[in-house]
Amino acid sequence: MPEKSPLAPASPPTLGPIAGVRLASIASGIRYRERTDLCLIELAEGTAAAAVLTKSSTAAAPIDWCREALADPRARAVVVNSGNANAFNGAAGMAAVRRTAAGVAARLGCAERDVFVASTGVIGEPLPVEKIEAALDTLAGALDPDGWAGAADAILTTDTFAKLAAARAEIDGTPVTVNGIAKGSGMIHPNMATMLAFVFTDAAIEAAALQALLAAANERSFNAITVDGDTSTSDMALLCATAQAGHAPVADADDPRLDGFRAALDAVMVDLAQQIVRDGEGATKFVTITVTGGASDASAKTIALAIANSPLVKTAIAGEDANWGRLVMAVGKSGEPADREKIAIAIGGHAVAQAGSRVPGYDEGPIARHMKGQEIEVTVDVGVGAGAATVWTCDLTHGYITINADYRS
Amino acid sequence: MPEKSPLAPASPPTLGPIAGVRLASIASGIRYRERTDLCLIELAEGTAAAAVLTKSSTAAAPIDWCREALADPRARAVVVNSGNANAFNGAAGMAAVRRTAAGVAARLGCAERDVFVASTGVIGEPLPVEKIEAALDTLAGALDPDGWAGAADAILTTDTFAKLAAARAEIDGTPVTVNGIAKGSGMIHPNMATMLAFVFTDAAIEAAALQALLAAANERSFNAITVDGDTSTSDMALLCATAQAGHAPVADADDPRLDGFRAALDAVMVDLAQQIVRDGEGATKFVTITVTGGASDASAKTIALAIANSPLVKTAIAGEDANWGRLVMAVGKSGEPADREKIAIAIGGHAVAQAGSRVPGYDEGPIARHMKGQEIEVTVDVGVGAGAATVWTCDLTHGYITINADYRS
Repeated sequence: MPEKSPLAPASPPTLGPIAGVRLASIASGIRYRERTDLCLIELAEGTAAAAVLTKSSTAAAPIDWCREALADPRARAVVVNSGNANAFNGAAGMAAVRRTAAGVAARLGCAERDVFVASTGVIGEPLPVEKIEAALDTLAGALDPDGWAGAADAILTTDTFAKLAAARAEIDGTPVTVNGIAKGSGMIHPNMATMLAFVFTDAAIEAAALQALLAAANERSFNAITVDGDTSTSDMALLCATAQAGHAPVADADDPRLDGFRAALDAVMVDLAQQIVRDGEGATKFVTITVTGGASDASAKTIALAIANSPLVKTAIAGEDANWGRLVMAVGKSGEPADREKIAIAIGGHAVAQAGSRVPGYDEGPIARHMKGQEIEVTVDVGVGAGAATVWTCDLTHGYITINADYRS
Repeated sequence: MPEKSPLAPASPPTLGPIAGVRLASIASGIRYRERTDLCLIELAEGTAAAAVLTKSSTAAAPIDWCREALADPRARAVVVNSGNANAFNGAAGMAAVRRTAAGVAARLGCAERDVFVASTGVIGEPLPVEKIEAALDTLAGALDPDGWAGAADAILTTDTFAKLAAARAEIDGTPVTVNGIAKGSGMIHPNMATMLAFVFTDAAIEAAALQALLAAANERSFNAITVDGDTSTSDMALLCATAQAGHAPVADADDPRLDGFRAALDAVMVDLAQQIVRDGEGATKFVTITVTGGASDASAKTIALAIANSPLVKTAIAGEDANWGRLVMAVGKSGEPADREKIAIAIGGHAVAQAGSRVPGYDEGPIARHMKGQEIEVTVDVGVGAGAATVWTCDLTHGYITINADYRS
């Protein structure tokens, strides 16, 4: 694995078990040498699943499979490989997914359609599915309620650290746990799910409610981050609820009994999303961009993402250059309503511009000092309405070029 | 000026005079040291003007001025400074434009509204308009029909070479000339005009027809290039016709007498647009992307631009890596119709994928050799309809990061 991102959390959290979830991982040799690349996650009978899947029109075969599998939102297993996206492989791609699902179903004694499949890595190369098949006996024999760290490692590609998060809540007085793992780092852009994320809970929540909870949390987490504006063929976020915690099942996403759970789910997903940004390819700065005064929350988010995706903004941040004119440019190119004569900008809490021009007596000193830090905060008020949004991104550095100019080799 | 782009034309063309056009340039000291940064272009009475202007909602003051000036499409002068965009300067920005226009009008004896003003450079810093005013007497005294090269130099910012192009045609048997100069290199993205371009002709074409001709040519040239997807606050393309060639004025853009002129205008604008890409910040490869099989020409263009703007595609090209899976990804993220099972891809004329997967017996050898060249050709058929488009871009390299992480310093 390459050198760990300077923005990585000090140490990964240790995830405890979740009743009804067992995990195993292995080095199957799909692409990487001496590195785990395949994980199997077994889910207890009665587990409900929800997912958000890439909107790409060239989605990979596993995405097609998962979309169909969601028609019956029960899940008994998740199998994930890294190193090969099994994308753009035509009929052979779907055949490989079916063989994978059949192999898992045979080992776990479940229906093929209850096996969710995900792949991440190079696009357009045939998936050596026989390597997955050859590993399934070993994986099935190694399933372990404490296999979280191994699973989090096995799904990584160009990531420099494993991404795990957990939170607890109560439903009806019963403790429930939310555990999540994710991988990301390039091709990260909000257009539905934006990478692979697998979140599990022992709560008992019916599938329709689970889907609504996932979609809402996704909007505030994985759909609020961007690294390079590119959208993978394979992105998905999966949420599985094993219903083993012991409380009465909840059927309505708006049920007040879910308030604590909703907060825990948000916390896990925002944590994972921010970890993905902190592992953005070549990232040296974690950037929080807040836009207020938008015509709507959605409009504010579009503007925030226009800023977050601007190569000129991102390179200025990489260069620790308080070149705030590029923020003005990015607002202007967003296509969303903004009142040029009312725009206000602050960096690191220091006012830069107000009422459409630089503040009187502008002193770049404190802003320049803020730019030298690892955590950059940008706020822009566009002076139109009450819409607001926060997104997270990273800077664009030589490291990004180095990683991506030679990824396949 | 930094080292010249490796993609620069061998030598810039020498532009001959155009009746009714005189040019002068000077180092006024706005920002750069020992470098020209201001040019004045005088136009004969009876000159018609057309322009395409940035759609940015944070457009610079000169853009506001030019938009108003176009209400009466006569032009007597163009004044352009580099080093400061006079953008996001509030009321002071427009006051500076007015003082510039008034100063030019006084020297040339014309109406202020017939003076087109353009500025390019840093956003959000007050324009030292007094330096422009102090230079106007000298400029007015130095106007020269052969001042093209000097003007082309004076409008540059991070460009590494001056951009000039010329073509000739006949209207009604009368020879006419089209001369153009441009600057670009960063913040280049098609959202109307995408940089500064000034094109002049001695043809006699009425303003409405001139505007139609410019808009059509712009779609095929400046709106078909992209470097980094960013849109400046100051972008404009201006077309001025002095009516000095001697033929009868033409009032209709579709008049067949304009066929040759239209081709000459296209040639100049496409040439300038391609020069801008060849001077893309840090560019080492000139990339031609053709999309066929689109639902419409516009849809094909959107897909071509999704490919051209993908950081992952651009870094793969920089790395001479035939990572064509990223093309599939970019098609998928474009949001435009594409039939995944019919997609065909070729690089350098060599088939990579057909019918939705890699071609049988795929041999990366010839493609890898093509990737090592300076001129990269990518064609993608998305298998939906008859729409087609070609766009031009460059690779994304360490040079881009270096230039943009420290532009202001």
